[in-house]
Amino acid sequence: MSEIKFGVLGQYFHCPVKGDFEYAAQALVLVDNSGAISSIINENDADFQTQISELSARKQLIELSPTQYLMPGMVDLHVHAPQFPQAGKGLDLPLYDWLQDYTFPLEAKFEDMDFAKKIYPELVQSLLANGTTSAVYFATIHKDTSVELARECVKQGQRGFIGKVNMDEASQCPAFYIEPSTSDALIDTENFIQQVQALEGNEHRLVSPVVTPRFVPSCSSEMLQGLGELVQKYQCHVQTHCSESDWARDYSQEKYGKTDVEIYSDFGLMTNKTILAHSIFLTPNDHKVIKATGASIAHCPLSNMYFANAAMQTREILDNDLKCGLGSDLAGAPIPSIFHTCLDAVNHSRVREDGTSTYLPADTRGESGSRISFLESYWMATVGGGQAIDAKVGLFQAGFEFDALVIDTAVSDSNIFILDEMDSAKDKLEKIITLNSRQNIRKVWVKGQLVVEK
Amino acid sequence: MSEIKFGVLGQYFHCPVKGDFEYAAQALVLVDNSGAISSIINENDADFQTQISELSARKQLIELSPTQYLMPGMVDLHVHAPQFPQAGKGLDLPLYDWLQDYTFPLEAKFEDMDFAKKIYPELVQSLLANGTTSAVYFATIHKDTSVELARECVKQGQRGFIGKVNMDEASQCPAFYIEPSTSDALIDTENFIQQVQALEGNEHRLVSPVVTPRFVPSCSSEMLQGLGELVQKYQCHVQTHCSESDWARDYSQEKYGKTDVEIYSDFGLMTNKTILAHSIFLTPNDHKVIKATGASIAHCPLSNMYFANAAMQTREILDNDLKCGLGSDLAGAPIPSIFHTCLDAVNHSRVREDGTSTYLPADTRGESGSRISFLESYWMATVGGGQAIDAKVGLFQAGFEFDALVIDTAVSDSNIFILDEMDSAKDKLEKIITLNSRQNIRKVWVKGQLVVEK
Repeated sequence: MSEIKFGVLGQYFHCPVKGDFEYAAQALVLVDNSGAISSIINENDADFQTQISELSARKQLIELSPTQYLMPGMVDLHVHAPQFPQAGKGLDLPLYDWLQDYTFPLEAKFEDMDFAKKIYPELVQSLLANGTTSAVYFATIHKDTSVELARECVKQGQRGFIGKVNMDEASQCPAFYIEPSTSDALIDTENFIQQVQALEGNEHRLVSPVVTPRFVPSCSSEMLQGLGELVQKYQCHVQTHCSESDWARDYSQEKYGKTDVEIYSDFGLMTNKTILAHSIFLTPNDHKVIKATGASIAHCPLSNMYFANAAMQTREILDNDLKCGLGSDLAGAPIPSIFHTCLDAVNHSRVREDGTSTYLPADTRGESGSRISFLESYWMATVGGGQAIDAKVGLFQAGFEFDALVIDTAVSDSNIFILDEMDSAKDKLEKIITLNSRQNIRKVWVKGQLVVEK
Repeated sequence: MSEIKFGVLGQYFHCPVKGDFEYAAQALVLVDNSGAISSIINENDADFQTQISELSARKQLIELSPTQYLMPGMVDLHVHAPQFPQAGKGLDLPLYDWLQDYTFPLEAKFEDMDFAKKIYPELVQSLLANGTTSAVYFATIHKDTSVELARECVKQGQRGFIGKVNMDEASQCPAFYIEPSTSDALIDTENFIQQVQALEGNEHRLVSPVVTPRFVPSCSSEMLQGLGELVQKYQCHVQTHCSESDWARDYSQEKYGKTDVEIYSDFGLMTNKTILAHSIFLTPNDHKVIKATGASIAHCPLSNMYFANAAMQTREILDNDLKCGLGSDLAGAPIPSIFHTCLDAVNHSRVREDGTSTYLPADTRGESGSRISFLESYWMATVGGGQAIDAKVGLFQAGFEFDALVIDTAVSDSNIFILDEMDSAKDKLEKIITLNSRQNIRKVWVKGQLVVEK
């Protein structure tokens, strides 16, 4: 058994049950040398005071103040790393113009290692500072700078899942941003997997390679076939876009006569480590295949508001117990915070429930009963995300990795206004989720390592 | 002519034309002793350097750094002041429960001056720190603590428009939170108007009283009649809720056979200083009456997502040149920032354009062409809001009041990531609007007075 590295003493929130939460007013979370939680001792346990005294004597006790809360690290299931400089830019353009005028030229620049070395450290640092302890990244088609992103995650200590993007279908990719050939791209991808796994400092697999077909339209069937074979060979993670818009869904039907989920399944890309971003237009059979394979959905509500043409079936997906977490979809949405994504997920579900058109009668306007709660949203951001990346994160339980944040509600320039005499634990949690800003996050640990301290 | 008090040298953004913006890379904004802008001198003007030297010699020059931007102060047209402790709490409840369980008991507590003196200073300070230089407040039914809110605005230097709330309809108000009688309430309201106008320190009318019937259902027709007479007598501002939900619209039709706008008009409550919060279910005749009277709409997009049952007809309202600004609707929405409200206004319009239901065909799902742009949203937050409060704020022009912010994109813990070589002025403005947080706001002036400095 590993030795205790440190203990954190204070109050914490987490969500062991979807739609509910647990609050501990005073607990001692013990973290071992491997970065895992070895045990959690409550104030009523016999050895509570003894443990505190011993840790304190060894200078291994981190004591939170009354305005500080220990919370699980946030999991962002969908980040376009190269689009970081584009965040908050051109979002009133139609998707086609946005991609052609901004995104593809920007992604193409990541052929240049110097440019990647300028942007990626800023991105990883920004996400960590916003409390994102695990991030699932689309990089670009360029192998070397994609490996560089993985290296940056190792360096800054973020739990990273990194994909070299694959896109080879000439009719759907700009000439300046496309794989040189399908076979070269597959060789590059295999090399990418091996290089990430062998990265110096990555012995404990904090950082993992992800097979990443951009989406059905940008990949030839040979590409999807080859990528499926790599997934089976290396048993690695998969990420892609799934039925994100009317156009994308229709494209797949026209080319294959199938849904995206069915196509990915045919090519061996649906596994329990597959993350399907968006997944807006799912059919009942898609639900079945996702459930049977154990694949997960990355719900990206703010980007859905811009580009998905509809609201995700979040209520049905949660009720059907599909695995589902949250994604910021940087820079299809501008805000690099999964706390904010929680709020957007609630918001979009509320708009879906009531509908939008004042020209329609109330009972034909929306989809009754489709709202989700803040607690469901926060569950997705932590536990749901952890399930999607197949990592033991998102909960304070013995055996889970210690990926955690300290939120302080009393820092200067905080919008979180708590009145102890009027706010229940649930109220406090909801206030922290909705009003939290980056400066409220004072410490961030990943795998027991302190990676942000302000 | 007043003397120059100081000059601000640097870059600025503002929106003289709805849907467009203006950027000055290097300008000198001169502010006189009355707090107004006396002139703006551009770097090509003959006396640019002379003025700078003279101001510098007199220690009256405020020089911005290259990462700092001068921007107009934000105008929040709809804030429920007593609900500040409720922000971010219970927002997954149905409106009725939210009001009965949280809002009305909380508002009732403002009978207690000590409680008001604990909460209101925090609220005003929070809004100023978020860049809200002008705020239009609903207080509570209690005259004395409503005057206290006005006093607090004077004290902290915020341009405040404060309403003692009126609600006397027994069938619609809880017994613990209702006017003692209609006639007493009208006397109280007249006293309130006089006391606010006579407040010590308010000689320049920084703070104004607002006649505030809560909404049609909570007011008897005698109350609406009496308030209309006070408006005509004192020529003062008016605020109320207007056609916010299906229920509210239907209530008015059942009781009066008219729309809210028609009812307010009948009672003399529609003037060019009237602010109608929400205004979701407007009829063509409502548009005509609003335009003819010069009344304004307070668009509260985030709270609309929760409680309005539909999206506002923002596109039609802007195209029809109705006066329209933005409101946070604290605490019907949790976030005390009009920058964030700009983002929400765009988001809700995008959702409205595309619709939400994946079970409907794309062409029947939304309302084509109804999106609004970030620039339109920002125009509402500044110029539109200024028109609504009948104040010369929101633009950098000679004769306008100097209500302004310094935004710094390079503070620590900022989410605004700007690359000078890739971002146009428009890109920078959109990034500031969408990614700005409270700590990016370093200085706030109202009427030429520095009220926040960090």
